[in-house]
Amino acid sequence: MPHFRVVLVEPLYEVNIGLTCRVMKNFGLKDLCLVRPRTSISDISRIYAVKASDILDSAVIVDSLEEAVKGFDLKVGTTGKLAGPRNVIRSVVPPWHLQELVSYEGKVALIFGREDIGLTNEELSLCDIVVHIPTSDEYPIMNVTHAITVVLYELSKIIHVKRKLRLASTKLKEVAIKYFTEVLDLVEFPREKRSKAQLVFRRVLGKSFISQKEMHVMLAFLRKVHLKLAEHVVKKS
Amino acid sequence: MPHFRVVLVEPLYEVNIGLTCRVMKNFGLKDLCLVRPRTSISDISRIYAVKASDILDSAVIVDSLEEAVKGFDLKVGTTGKLAGPRNVIRSVVPPWHLQELVSYEGKVALIFGREDIGLTNEELSLCDIVVHIPTSDEYPIMNVTHAITVVLYELSKIIHVKRKLRLASTKLKEVAIKYFTEVLDLVEFPREKRSKAQLVFRRVLGKSFISQKEMHVMLAFLRKVHLKLAEHVVKKS
Repeated sequence: MPHFRVVLVEPLYEVNIGLTCRVMKNFGLKDLCLVRPRTSISDISRIYAVKASDILDSAVIVDSLEEAVKGFDLKVGTTGKLAGPRNVIRSVVPPWHLQELVSYEGKVALIFGREDIGLTNEELSLCDIVVHIPTSDEYPIMNVTHAITVVLYELSKIIHVKRKLRLASTKLKEVAIKYFTEVLDLVEFPREKRSKAQLVFRRVLGKSFISQKEMHVMLAFLRKVHLKLAEHVVKKS
Repeated sequence: MPHFRVVLVEPLYEVNIGLTCRVMKNFGLKDLCLVRPRTSISDISRIYAVKASDILDSAVIVDSLEEAVKGFDLKVGTTGKLAGPRNVIRSVVPPWHLQELVSYEGKVALIFGREDIGLTNEELSLCDIVVHIPTSDEYPIMNVTHAITVVLYELSKIIHVKRKLRLASTKLKEVAIKYFTEVLDLVEFPREKRSKAQLVFRRVLGKSFISQKEMHVMLAFLRKVHLKLAEHVVKKS
């Protein structure tokens, strides 16, 4: 997978610089580059970086966007402002388009604009691709660190997803459904409604992506119910 | 789409309250509820809300989480902390699991914890489903408004909706859980495992986004089981 650099162009607020460091570290990125920051960088940035002040310390400060992206293979711009369909500079892709990047190697710069005016048309025309986050028409302009969060989140979906949970096996689910069906019988559930009840049970398990460990608990419950009911029926007859 | 409420539990910083309003408006949400805020709400919140101060003005302030989610059909908790595989309270789904919700109607509360300690185990056990954003092991704890951004972004992603299902109401789910609990008792389910079984049952219902219609079928099943077992126990004594 590629190396990612986050580039902030002329950031204005220390809070945002700090929060950028934090979210970068949350998603496993380290390379931050600031182009002509319009603020000093003091303790405020550090406070908002919380446990990511190492990223602040190693941030590179440069004088131009060209310098920030020198040697990078792909320059990804971002914009909150859309334009008419004929405007090529602001012809955009949604953030999930970036997921494809994971199958590549190389150096990718993710470029975020000023808090007040974003990236200029000139800066966007340097970019290979421009990302726009679909937002409400009423208020489309996001806080810059929220926009970064969305982009890094999309990229991390592939990088950092750790599925630790084992899906319940079909075998175990079938056992549960078998018990469920026998219980329907034991409780004299209306015959014409049984197949529907079975289907609902199966769908609820399915839609919940029930895990193996959860399935074991549900199964223990159904077994107990089954056992008690079976005893009862035997006694009755 | 369901109606979404964002609930902040005991927020500590005005900056985060303001940024929450902003990102809510970015994604078209309006209903904000603050549970026992630990800060006054002054101009700082307003500055960070930028053009979303209307959401700040109409925010509801309540004394308890219970009050914040009263009348809501689905309670979605969030956590940055994971636990071992045996911990059911922090058994989690990723944010994209929530996309399914767009095809439902009903009232959904999205609950975000304190900046310092998140949501407690007790608060999480009130939740029908718990979301965790996959992050780097090195620094998993996100700024709360970054977490909100990811969740709202995922919800906003799917616009096209074919079917409209009514989410099962909390009332109906509570009845089901009550029957489930009584059945655990009737079948002499190991006492030390009962609360875990109850929680798994709640989570399976929650993760499946069980509909009102499906819930009625499940309830009919549980009632029948309960009735039969109760008969049995009476006969035995």
